[in-house]
Amino acid sequence: MPLSLVNDCVGRELALVEERFNRELSSDLPCVNTLVRHVARFRGKMLRPTLLLLAGKAAGQLTDEHITLATVVEMVHMATLVHDDVLDEAELRRNGATINHLRGNEAAVLLGDYLISHSYHLCSSLSSQFAARAIGRTTNAVCEGELLQIDNRNNLDLDEPTYIQIISRKTASLCATCCMLGARYAGAPERHIRQLETFGLCVGIAFQIQDDILDLVGDVATVGKTLGIDLDKGKMTLPLIHFLRTAPREHRELLRSLLRGDEPDRLERVRNLVLPGNYIQYARNRAAGYVARARAALDGLPDSEPRSMLDAMAEFVLSRPL
Amino acid sequence: MPLSLVNDCVGRELALVEERFNRELSSDLPCVNTLVRHVARFRGKMLRPTLLLLAGKAAGQLTDEHITLATVVEMVHMATLVHDDVLDEAELRRNGATINHLRGNEAAVLLGDYLISHSYHLCSSLSSQFAARAIGRTTNAVCEGELLQIDNRNNLDLDEPTYIQIISRKTASLCATCCMLGARYAGAPERHIRQLETFGLCVGIAFQIQDDILDLVGDVATVGKTLGIDLDKGKMTLPLIHFLRTAPREHRELLRSLLRGDEPDRLERVRNLVLPGNYIQYARNRAAGYVARARAALDGLPDSEPRSMLDAMAEFVLSRPL
Repeated sequence: MPLSLVNDCVGRELALVEERFNRELSSDLPCVNTLVRHVARFRGKMLRPTLLLLAGKAAGQLTDEHITLATVVEMVHMATLVHDDVLDEAELRRNGATINHLRGNEAAVLLGDYLISHSYHLCSSLSSQFAARAIGRTTNAVCEGELLQIDNRNNLDLDEPTYIQIISRKTASLCATCCMLGARYAGAPERHIRQLETFGLCVGIAFQIQDDILDLVGDVATVGKTLGIDLDKGKMTLPLIHFLRTAPREHRELLRSLLRGDEPDRLERVRNLVLPGNYIQYARNRAAGYVARARAALDGLPDSEPRSMLDAMAEFVLSRPL
Repeated sequence: MPLSLVNDCVGRELALVEERFNRELSSDLPCVNTLVRHVARFRGKMLRPTLLLLAGKAAGQLTDEHITLATVVEMVHMATLVHDDVLDEAELRRNGATINHLRGNEAAVLLGDYLISHSYHLCSSLSSQFAARAIGRTTNAVCEGELLQIDNRNNLDLDEPTYIQIISRKTASLCATCCMLGARYAGAPERHIRQLETFGLCVGIAFQIQDDILDLVGDVATVGKTLGIDLDKGKMTLPLIHFLRTAPREHRELLRSLLRGDEPDRLERVRNLVLPGNYIQYARNRAAGYVARARAALDGLPDSEPRSMLDAMAEFVLSRPL
C-alpha cells in the first residue's frame, strides 16, 4: 500500500502526534533529553497511531483527544520495543555503543519506564478514565503475552492455540485497543466500536504471524532488519509448530535436533528443511484467514476513504515481501 | 517506633491493601502467577501505604479509595525495586537462581512492567482522573531521578544540590504523593493537603540520606541487607560528597583513588577514612534538618493519633541504628 494514501488521509494528524510525542517526553534535565533522543532509532511507521486515527475517521469525527490517544499508544509501543531490547541481550549489546556512557541494560530499562510512565501520565489528562482503564488493561495483557512467551522459550511442544494466545496478548491486544479507542472517541455506535476492535485484533494477529514468517524465511535486504532472532531466542513460531506436528517423522527429528543445537548455520539449515513443504504456506493461510476476518469486520461501516484505508492495510499485511 | 502502634492505627487497612494487592496481580495464566509470587521477596514494611493511610486519617476520613490508592503506591514502589534489580546486575545474579527457569533480567524487566501496568490499571478504576494524573507525574519524576543518578555514576564531583535533587525525585516524590493523595481523598482542606505533601517530601529526603549513610557505615547484621552497594554502583552519597569538599587535601586524594579503584577491601578502607571526621554527622544533621521540616509541616493539623504516628515516623528515620 503506498504510504502516500495514508498520508493523504491522516498525515496531518500523524504530524501532530509526532509533535506531541516529542513535547511530552522533554524534561528539564539535559541527561534525560539526551537519552530520549535514542528513542528515535526505534521510531517506525506509526502503525498503531495510524490504526487509531483511521478507525476514528472511519467511524465518526476525529477530535483533539484522538491526537492524545494516538500519542499514548505510540509511547506504549515504543516502551515495549525498548524493553524487548533488554530481553534480547545480544541485540542490545550490538546497539549498546550508541547509548553514550550509559550502560546498555540500565538505559534501556529506564528509558522504557520513562516512556510507559509518560504514556499513562498523558492518558490521564483526558476528560474521562475510560481510555486509561483500557490502556491499563491492554498493557496488562501485553505483559502477560510476553511472560507466556518466555515461559515457553525452547518449548518445542508449544501448540498452535498457545502460540495464538501469546501473539494475541503480546501484539494484537494493543492493535485492538487502538481501533476500539479511535472509534469510541469519535462517537461511533457501540456496534461499530466492537467491529473495529475485532478488526484491530485480527489485523494484529495476522501481522505477527507474517512477522514471524519473515523472521524465519525473509530476505535480510528486503525485510531490512536482522532475521533469525526467533530461533536465537528459542521462540517457536507457526511454520515450525506446524512442521513439528505434520512433517514426516525423520524430518521432525532433524528439526528438533537443529532447534536444540546452536550451529552457526542453523538458520540456513532450518530454512532448507522447512521451505520445500507447505509449512510456510500453512502459516500464510492462517494469516490470510485473520485478514479475511478483519476485513469482514468492516462490513456495515459507512463507505469512506478511511474505511478503504483500513481495508487496504489489512490486505497489505499479507503482501509484505518475503 | 514500635510497629504495633502503626498497626493499632491503620493495621486493618494495611491488611486490606495486602489483600487487594494480591488480588489485582492474579492472572488466568499460571506462569504469570508463579512469577508474581517472587514479588513477595521484595515486600517490605509497606512504608508508602502507611504514609498514605496515616495522612488520610490525620487529615480527614478514610474511604475505600484510600485502600485502592495505597495498593497503587505499593505496586509502584515494588516495580521500582524489581527494576532496580536489573540495574544492579550483581544483586540480580545472586537472586537469579530463585527465579525458576526464567532468565534473570527478562523476568525482572517483565515483572516490573507487570507491576507498573497493574498499578495504573488499578488507579484508573477510581472515580476521577486526579490520582492517575498525580501518579503519572510522580513516576515521571522517579524515572528522571534514576536517570540523573546513573548519569552521575562515578562522578566524583557530584555536588550536594544535585544529590538532593536525585533523591528528591527518585525517593521523596513518591512519599510526597502518598501523603498528598491520602489527605486529598480524605476531604482535607487545600492547606492541609499541601502541608502533608511537604511532610512526605521531607521525610522521603531524610529517609534516603539515612539509607545512604547506612549503606556506607552500617553494620550488616543490624541493617539486615547487603551494604556497600552504592560504592559498587559508583553512587556518590552525602558523607562522601561532603568529605570531598571539606577534608584535608591528601585525604580527599586518597578517597578519590579508592573510589576509582576496585580493591576488595575498598568499603573497609573508605569507612576507615570517613568515620573519624564529622562527615557522617554532617549527613545526619542534614537528614535531621529535613525531619525537623517534616515535623514542622504538621503544625496546624488537628491533634490526633495518626498525626502523632506521622510525627513518630519522621523521628524514627533518624533513629534507625547504624
